[in-house]
Amino acid sequence: MLRSLSHKPSPSSLFNFTSLRSRILNTHTHAFSSAVSPPSKAIIYESHGQPDAVTKLVDIPATEVKENDLCVKMLAAPINPSDINRIQGVYPVRPEPPAVGGYEGVGEVHSVGSAVTCFSPGDWVIPSPPSFGTWQTYIVKDQNVWHKVNKGVPMEYAATITVNPLTALLMLEDCVTLNSGDAIVQNGATSMVGQCVIQLAKSRGIHNINIIRDRPGVGEVKERLKDLGADEVFTESELEVKNVKSLLGGIPEPALGFNCVGGNSASLVLKFLRRGGTMVTYGGMSKKPVTVSTSSFIFKELSLRGFWLQNWLSTDKAEEGRRMIDRLLGLVQDGKLKYKMELTPFNDFNTALDKALGKLGSQPKQVIKF
Amino acid sequence: MLRSLSHKPSPSSLFNFTSLRSRILNTHTHAFSSAVSPPSKAIIYESHGQPDAVTKLVDIPATEVKENDLCVKMLAAPINPSDINRIQGVYPVRPEPPAVGGYEGVGEVHSVGSAVTCFSPGDWVIPSPPSFGTWQTYIVKDQNVWHKVNKGVPMEYAATITVNPLTALLMLEDCVTLNSGDAIVQNGATSMVGQCVIQLAKSRGIHNINIIRDRPGVGEVKERLKDLGADEVFTESELEVKNVKSLLGGIPEPALGFNCVGGNSASLVLKFLRRGGTMVTYGGMSKKPVTVSTSSFIFKELSLRGFWLQNWLSTDKAEEGRRMIDRLLGLVQDGKLKYKMELTPFNDFNTALDKALGKLGSQPKQVIKF
Repeated sequence: MLRSLSHKPSPSSLFNFTSLRSRILNTHTHAFSSAVSPPSKAIIYESHGQPDAVTKLVDIPATEVKENDLCVKMLAAPINPSDINRIQGVYPVRPEPPAVGGYEGVGEVHSVGSAVTCFSPGDWVIPSPPSFGTWQTYIVKDQNVWHKVNKGVPMEYAATITVNPLTALLMLEDCVTLNSGDAIVQNGATSMVGQCVIQLAKSRGIHNINIIRDRPGVGEVKERLKDLGADEVFTESELEVKNVKSLLGGIPEPALGFNCVGGNSASLVLKFLRRGGTMVTYGGMSKKPVTVSTSSFIFKELSLRGFWLQNWLSTDKAEEGRRMIDRLLGLVQDGKLKYKMELTPFNDFNTALDKALGKLGSQPKQVIKF
Repeated sequence: MLRSLSHKPSPSSLFNFTSLRSRILNTHTHAFSSAVSPPSKAIIYESHGQPDAVTKLVDIPATEVKENDLCVKMLAAPINPSDINRIQGVYPVRPEPPAVGGYEGVGEVHSVGSAVTCFSPGDWVIPSPPSFGTWQTYIVKDQNVWHKVNKGVPMEYAATITVNPLTALLMLEDCVTLNSGDAIVQNGATSMVGQCVIQLAKSRGIHNINIIRDRPGVGEVKERLKDLGADEVFTESELEVKNVKSLLGGIPEPALGFNCVGGNSASLVLKFLRRGGTMVTYGGMSKKPVTVSTSSFIFKELSLRGFWLQNWLSTDKAEEGRRMIDRLLGLVQDGKLKYKMELTPFNDFNTALDKALGKLGSQPKQVIKF
């Protein structure tokens, strides 16, 4: 385990498991060719389980850079909830262990294969669609999986744009046709998706009502979300009223709701929705199911569905996804999209993981800096 | 109360409440005109409450038949669950009491107003869209609310076609595009809608999987549903297995599910659905909500919505509704649509009501014969 190794892996931790054996064998065959990567360090897991128990740091030897490959020196990669679920083995689409952790990130092109013309060393690239194994210092993959991004964007934004901000943008644009002056409601509003929803809605003139957990320092959290563009922010306990809609003031009843919590928090989203409204579930942080009354379906005509980025991307929309990522990065550069993150050095991966696992209370999104 | 009156109303039970006062006043004014209805007997409720406590039989005097009115001698009218909910005051669209019970039925034209040309005495008519107050022996209403039906149809079918069979037809045709060879799943399969769904699906080559409550005589119930065209019938306890889909045999995973029960029975419908499937809720007989896991929304991509006939009809589809009713009555005449009913004389209304309220165990749909 990384934690016992003090980040000084012994030879026995050399990464040599079946699914990655070919890489190592290739390395041995081509070790003296000029087209090889530098050796890499990676966070891997050999079996599914609790991430702080099963992840470890390993050395991966130099590997061949084939003619269409890029060798990318990773700069930054986040720890997302779905990364944790993949390691736990509870995410429906996941690599078989042993596997390198991580699913998105940004890197700088270190070297290119002999047939590569569209990328040069020094370019910043992200895997798009996102793909497995970003928690390592050097990645060698075909040029098709990489998307060049503007180096003017802070690296932590480039590293995190393909999962959560894209989810927020797609949910706002793909689920229900919204016009300026309409309203949406969401729970989990402090999540990265939640923060993006607020700003993306605001930029389109869409009112947004936000539900957060009761917590210490709630006043400060509300102010921060309002600074981003939140119209209203309520804690769950503030919504223990007979008619939540009486709290709407001049905001119209929302046509669309986003749920990433489940349980009572999802019920509160449903209570705010107007007749005929839609609630989209994209997470279940409380681990509680969504409960809906019969009359909500029949008389209030509510519809419930889900959103899963991985499914959206699998439907032949990789190019559209890249265009949307460029839009989002443009908003970041223009100062119109920001969210809380904490950059943590790769050497402190264990601390970042503990924070991502919630062991140290509410924390900003953890982004590993390589 | 009817039950204390032994169906011999005293003068004090004369129906004389505000919302119907004008009818009575009109009657007094025009009592000697030739264009008046015969006196009527009606089941009314003066306040919301339990139907067996608040309904009573009253006499309603003769009333004027205006130039565009039909005076209809009612032949038969059912007691539907929504009739009970209206009397209880829990149905969102309901007349204010005092009101006559009932919402659909069939009658014979007794007389027509002077400007009526499309209807003649002796015609069979149904209120279409269905409307309030069918539990009475004579109804006077504008010709526009009536739809002429073929007298070759048994009266109990004409009396019951506009609510439950139309719901079944619309849910099968409006919610998801189904092709021959596809499959659906439903709970509450012995309900009138359930029986219609089986036969309408069968006629389109759509496989149907049916879930019923555990009950005495379940073998006979299964046989009856299979005779109607059910491919599979399972009790809830038979579905306490790890993977309900292992019970599908050669039937494809259903794309569409219908739920009129809620609780565990709704969860069973969800378990059968294929990835991307839709569950439509149109009732909640168990009075338990629908509970859905987060992963059902995100990874299984299920959608949940409701269906309410009253809402469908309110969207300017009255004419389309009448065409569909004619189609359904055609299927009845061809022997392709049947369902269990019990005709009960108006004098025995209390017994029929007790049966409809479930006080006498599982009973067929109760239809009052006037």
